[in-house]
Order: sequence, then C-alpha cells, then structure tokens
Amino acid sequence: MLTSRPRVTLAMSDRTRAELLTPPLLTRLHEVAQTDPAVLVQDFADPRHRALLAGTDILLTGWGVPAVDGAALERMPRLGAIVHGAGSVKGFIGPGVFERGVLVSSAAAANAVPVAEFTIAAIIFAAKRVTRFVHALRTHRAAGALDLAVTGVGGHGLTIGVVGASRIGRRVIAALHGLQMSVLLADPTVDRADAATLGADLVDLDELLHRANIVTLHAPSVPETRHLLDARRLGLLSDGATVINTARGALIDTAALTAELVSGRLDAVLDVTDPEPLPPDSPLFDLPNVLLTPHIAGALGNEVTRLGELAVTEIERLTAGLPLAHPVHAADLERIA
Amino acid sequence: MLTSRPRVTLAMSDRTRAELLTPPLLTRLHEVAQTDPAVLVQDFADPRHRALLAGTDILLTGWGVPAVDGAALERMPRLGAIVHGAGSVKGFIGPGVFERGVLVSSAAAANAVPVAEFTIAAIIFAAKRVTRFVHALRTHRAAGALDLAVTGVGGHGLTIGVVGASRIGRRVIAALHGLQMSVLLADPTVDRADAATLGADLVDLDELLHRANIVTLHAPSVPETRHLLDARRLGLLSDGATVINTARGALIDTAALTAELVSGRLDAVLDVTDPEPLPPDSPLFDLPNVLLTPHIAGALGNEVTRLGELAVTEIERLTAGLPLAHPVHAADLERIA
Repeated sequence: MLTSRPRVTLAMSDRTRAELLTPPLLTRLHEVAQTDPAVLVQDFADPRHRALLAGTDILLTGWGVPAVDGAALERMPRLGAIVHGAGSVKGFIGPGVFERGVLVSSAAAANAVPVAEFTIAAIIFAAKRVTRFVHALRTHRAAGALDLAVTGVGGHGLTIGVVGASRIGRRVIAALHGLQMSVLLADPTVDRADAATLGADLVDLDELLHRANIVTLHAPSVPETRHLLDARRLGLLSDGATVINTARGALIDTAALTAELVSGRLDAVLDVTDPEPLPPDSPLFDLPNVLLTPHIAGALGNEVTRLGELAVTEIERLTAGLPLAHPVHAADLERIA
Repeated sequence: MLTSRPRVTLAMSDRTRAELLTPPLLTRLHEVAQTDPAVLVQDFADPRHRALLAGTDILLTGWGVPAVDGAALERMPRLGAIVHGAGSVKGFIGPGVFERGVLVSSAAAANAVPVAEFTIAAIIFAAKRVTRFVHALRTHRAAGALDLAVTGVGGHGLTIGVVGASRIGRRVIAALHGLQMSVLLADPTVDRADAATLGADLVDLDELLHRANIVTLHAPSVPETRHLLDARRLGLLSDGATVINTARGALIDTAALTAELVSGRLDAVLDVTDPEPLPPDSPLFDLPNVLLTPHIAGALGNEVTRLGELAVTEIERLTAGLPLAHPVHAADLERIA
C-alpha cells in the first residue's frame, strides 16, 4: 500500500500544528516521509489542495481537521492511513473510511495521561473540599475560615467510584492505590476477575453511587450512556458526595445535577458540560461547591507533544511495514468516547 | 519509668479530641492505659485538674494543647512521655521538657501524607493553569475561554524544584516520578548521593529557581530560612513559573511575592502566608493566578485519624517497653518546621 517514502498531508488547525509537531518531531517525519508542514488542509474541497490530496498516502490529522466524508475520500484515491494526533476520531470520520480499507490510528492513549492526572488532582482536592475552602476564604478574608461550614473533609480511607474501565479509568484506578483509597468500579464490559486484577471491586452502577464518596466518570458517550447519571441515580449518592466529569457532558442530566449542586447536597468538578459551554446564566459558574473548568483535562499546550510523538511513531511504523500500535476499528466507533 | 497501665491525660481542644480519637482508637487506648477521654486539659493551671496532672504518666496532646512550660512540668512530677497527635511540637514544648528526660513523640510522619498529596494535586493543577482557567471561564461565561491569554500550559516534561528533603519533600519527590517530571532538589543537609537515591538532581537554591517551572517549599521555618524566597530569589524564577507553599508563610517575603503576582509574572499556590491570615485588603485574595487556601494541606477531618492512630501506637509501644517509633529530640527543635 505505502510507497517507500509516503506522502503525508497535514489536516488540522494552525495552532494544533504548532503544538503537535515540534521541530524534533518534524525532523523525524521528514526522515521517513515526504511532507510539507507549511500546508495545512482545513477544507478538503479547497481547489488549491487538489493535487496534494490526489497524491496523499497518509493523512496526519489533529484538532481542526474537517470531516473525512465520501467527497473527501474521493479526492484522496491513494489514501492508506489516517493517523490522528488527538483523542477521539469519532467527530470527523465515518464508516466510509473503514469501508475503503483505510487504516486509522488514534492518540487516545497519549491523551489519557493528562486526563488521568487531572482526575487524580481533582479527587485529592475534592476530598479536601478545596473549592469550598477557597470560596470561604475569599468571602470572609479572615481567620476562622476553617470553622465555616466546610464538613466531611479529608481523603483518608475514602471510597472512590470509577465509572468505566477505559484507558483513562484504568490509569485513575492504578494511581488511586498510591492514595490508600478503596476503589469501586462499574463497567458492564468488565468481569470480576478483570476488576480484581485492576485492584477495584466490581459493583453495579447503583451500588457504586450508593457507596462512593467521590464518583469519577470515564465511560464513553454513546446513546446508551446519555444521562447515565440522571435524577434518580444522582439521588443515590450520599450527602456530601462529589461527582467528577472529565469525560463528556452528555453522561449527566445537567438539570438534575444543577438542582443537587444548588441545594449544596453534592459537590462537583466539571471539566465538560452539556451544553458546553453552559448558558451564561447557569448557577454552576458561581457555586462554592463546583469547580468548573473549560474542557482542559485532555492534552493541552506542551502535553500535545505526547500526541505528536505517538502519531509520528505510528507513521514510522507504517513506513517500516509494522502494524499500527494504536489502531481504531469500525466496531470501536460505537464504544469510544 | 512507666507503670503497667500508665495514666494517660488528654490535652487538646474538644474538636481535636473528636477527630483524633475515634471509638476504635479509644478502645485500643483503654486496653493499655488508664484514661478518661471526657477530661481535656486546656489549661495546666486549672485547679480542677491538679490531681489528674499529679498522677499523669503520659500526656497525649493535640491541636489546642497549652504550652508545657516549667510550671506545667512541676504539676506533672510523674510525666514520662508526651505523645503528640499532630505535626510539630515546636509550638508548645521547650528545652525544659528534654532536660527533665521526658520522651517526646510527634505524628509529623502521618501529617506528611496529606500535605504531600495536596502538593502533588497543586503541582498538576498549577501545570495546567487550572486557577487561571477557572477565573477566565467564570469571567467570560462563554466558549473561547481556552483562547484567552492562558499560556505556558501543560505538565509534560516540566521541571519541578523541591526545596527541602523533609519527610514531605521526600514523599513529593517520590510521587513526581509517576508524573514523568524532572526533579531538582535544593537542601544544604543532603549530599549528591542521597539526592540521587531519592531520584532528584541536587542543585543550589539559586540554580533551582532559575531552572524550575514549579517550585514547592518543604523547608523548616527557622531563623536562617526566613524569607528564603526574597525579592532577589523570586526574580530568578522564569516568567510563568509557579511558587507552591504548603510549609510556612515566613519562608517567603510576602511583599516581594505579592508584587510578582500582581504583575502576573508568576503564579502561586499558597496554603500558608505571612501574616496568616492575610490582611483583608491583600490583592492575593482575588488574583486569577493565585490559589489561596486556609492552611488545609495538613491533616484535616478524617485525615486526623491517621495522627491518632500513630499516637495510640506510640503509647502501646511505651507500655510494651518498646522505644518510640517517632521520637523528637532536643536537637530536632532547631531544624523542624
């Protein structure tokens, strides 16, 4: 399929290229492929790119890549592989890519690293009620903030509920062992022996919600997981529990969660929301028990280099006749985030 | 020195007793000692406690303990040991205690656990500029917050400067290895071989400040470390560096740091300050690049149980004729926090 020095075309935003492909990575890329990193395809129908696309063997994609639909595929008759230097490929490729036999790789494994790190930090700070303390200190600007109504404080011996043994979920579980916390896992695709290997106690989701002090979501966003945490399930959480979402906003019924947060019964760390961003009048922006961040848990800034490294390594593997180390298959589209 | 079932007297605040001594720990204490947990000494001169103090073999202390000065020691002629269920003993005991031959134990080792965890979370969030993002999102309440002027984002390949290989500093260094970050250590009491064993590169403080992206303080507060980070040393930090202080406020010249934070050149995570609390008009309460918390990194809430467990274990050791596992000696007072 691939010529000895395949033509690699970049399809991504300007900013992504700058972060994804550092000079050392570009050097590596040039050693195995023909590529012009100055040209970024941001519209497959752009006539200026016609010849480039016609000769493209590998598409190196990143944030800002336009959809690779039927029309785009027709413009790239030689296309053998799409190597995505970001997490999910779901937003820009459809079944047509797989039907054509195009190989697909994703850097989700590299993206899992910062998400898991962010989640661990969120768990430690949630256990300590940091967001409530920060708010109390800023409001009172005096001693005694400690004696304000911040209760249920401390991470010793807590039970953490991990929803979904995804790449990220597994990394979170592994890191929690260092924190001497008990781990419950809910995941319908995992059996008890797998869970035990991970070091987590497999339970169903309702039981997890009932028992966990902090619940962190690492499940894919698919039709069956929409509003996985709805009003009934949120009601199973004990008073003072924290919900952490670094996955996808649609996993939670925002209205139901907002009611629980406004009442102060639950705390939350929300890096993703539904809708995203929230409407400007959402109370979640200002609540003392909510840490709201703008979808930053995944690779950002210098962390994007990890994704570029994975993607360039995949292209090196292809040119060396090796299989992709991080392939995505058609069937995966239904179960990935 | 000790009778077979020594008399243990509690000296601490009501709240400390409730958190420190859970029912299972009180049961363990009763098995080896005579104690009345309903009586808390909060003033050694209180005439109601005269007989109790006269018969006291071991003082079990915690936050809220009054100073054990010469007068207090005279009231406790049988006193053989002070077992402190908190971190530093420096605030309430003086050289007289050691001159009398009273054994002293501290739960600083158990207190190091939550401080190190808080520090790791602070490092992950500082690398990700979480505080700036939170502020930007709250201010703008709209998409595009990511494209605001939050630069230098990401934890990949950062260099962390750890100042002080204390119990806490060592735990932080160990945890950083899991985050794939480079670690510099400055500590005049450590040699290069020790540092290598810890997995850190030993440098002098000025070089550490020059090279580190994030600097975290774990040095004792003694006269020589007062304003360890003064205006000159803060000036050595590169633009965008973060200073984390979970140790003692006096380690930093607050005026000099405030100037660097108001200008936006540096970021900070400050769990301790000098003075503490800060004056109500301090700009540090509201800056988007400062995470200010009210001295909560140490054991709080359920984390205090770890301290109680250590203290009760020390009393069990004494009654079994074993040496203290966590002794404090007179010479330690000059080098501990």
